[in-house]
Amino acid sequence: MNWKSGIVMEEFLWISSLMAVSLVCWWTDSSRLDLVRNISEIEGGDYGRPGLSHVTVASSLRDGFDEVEVWLQTFGPGTRTPIHRHACEEVFVVLKGGGTLYLAAASSSDDRPGTPVGFPIGSNTTFRIPVNDVHQVWNTDEEQDLQFVVVISRPPVKVYTYQDWNTKHAEAKLMFPYHWDRNFFTP
Amino acid sequence: MNWKSGIVMEEFLWISSLMAVSLVCWWTDSSRLDLVRNISEIEGGDYGRPGLSHVTVASSLRDGFDEVEVWLQTFGPGTRTPIHRHACEEVFVVLKGGGTLYLAAASSSDDRPGTPVGFPIGSNTTFRIPVNDVHQVWNTDEEQDLQFVVVISRPPVKVYTYQDWNTKHAEAKLMFPYHWDRNFFTP
Repeated sequence: MNWKSGIVMEEFLWISSLMAVSLVCWWTDSSRLDLVRNISEIEGGDYGRPGLSHVTVASSLRDGFDEVEVWLQTFGPGTRTPIHRHACEEVFVVLKGGGTLYLAAASSSDDRPGTPVGFPIGSNTTFRIPVNDVHQVWNTDEEQDLQFVVVISRPPVKVYTYQDWNTKHAEAKLMFPYHWDRNFFTP
Repeated sequence: MNWKSGIVMEEFLWISSLMAVSLVCWWTDSSRLDLVRNISEIEGGDYGRPGLSHVTVASSLRDGFDEVEVWLQTFGPGTRTPIHRHACEEVFVVLKGGGTLYLAAASSSDDRPGTPVGFPIGSNTTFRIPVNDVHQVWNTDEEQDLQFVVVISRPPVKVYTYQDWNTKHAEAKLMFPYHWDRNFFTP
């Protein structure tokens, strides 16, 4: 090896080291950056439900959460969830607006939900859905948006939907992966 | 039994039935009522940390949640958490204000957290704390309150606090039950 190729080799090693260090820094930064996210920059949508704005703030399938998932949802006037149930804990924190929670308590002797009870919900209230109780959240206000943070356990959510309150539990339809999980689901 | 005592007995049975029905309705209502709660009416406090307003919105020990717990916290300017870690998933949704998340990634080769990295947090951001990473949340803004919804898994929380970033992991102090859980804890 002459002195010229020696210098070339030295430069090559130096540049390689620099690239390796940059790569480590980049990796470190990018793995850190997703710790803090701007919610406005997280992709969301209406997922086929007119009047809905859903953002999965913390996702099981996308972000690797094993135990909790957090959603930010806004319902325009008249917008409602399907009648549904899921075998997880669920907590809502209402940030603005108002509406109605319809809930039919689960009973092992009934083969269908039956007529639900309506509970008014509003800004600065919190409500919870008992595991497997059939429920529906509805923005019954005619003007204001209804917005809440939703927390669920046991993600990703497995939703059983009911055509109406007289649909038999056995005939509820499993939706899995749920609409907003589909892009991140690998069978 | 003469006709008078027959009427008295009939009235007694009728009134008893009415009372029983009322009792069932009352029980049903009161067990339903706690599904929806006004957050302003849930007892909270500063729990010995000046500048803190903490409300346990959904509680493991108080409400019987097994898998998630939800807090609403407001930090006045300068208010901060202790330097701490916990073996659960944790997600923050920032509602208003700004501040800094300090975080030292867990590494099995280190016996202490060491110098943390600071991440700016602000309104409409979300951030997560990796399980067991040592961290501190600080309202570094000099004027505004910092408010967020906090979600944890595996409640009730078991917090290990550090005197400073050079405290050894082995010397971190277990706080259990944590301040806001003490009133609801039965050994």
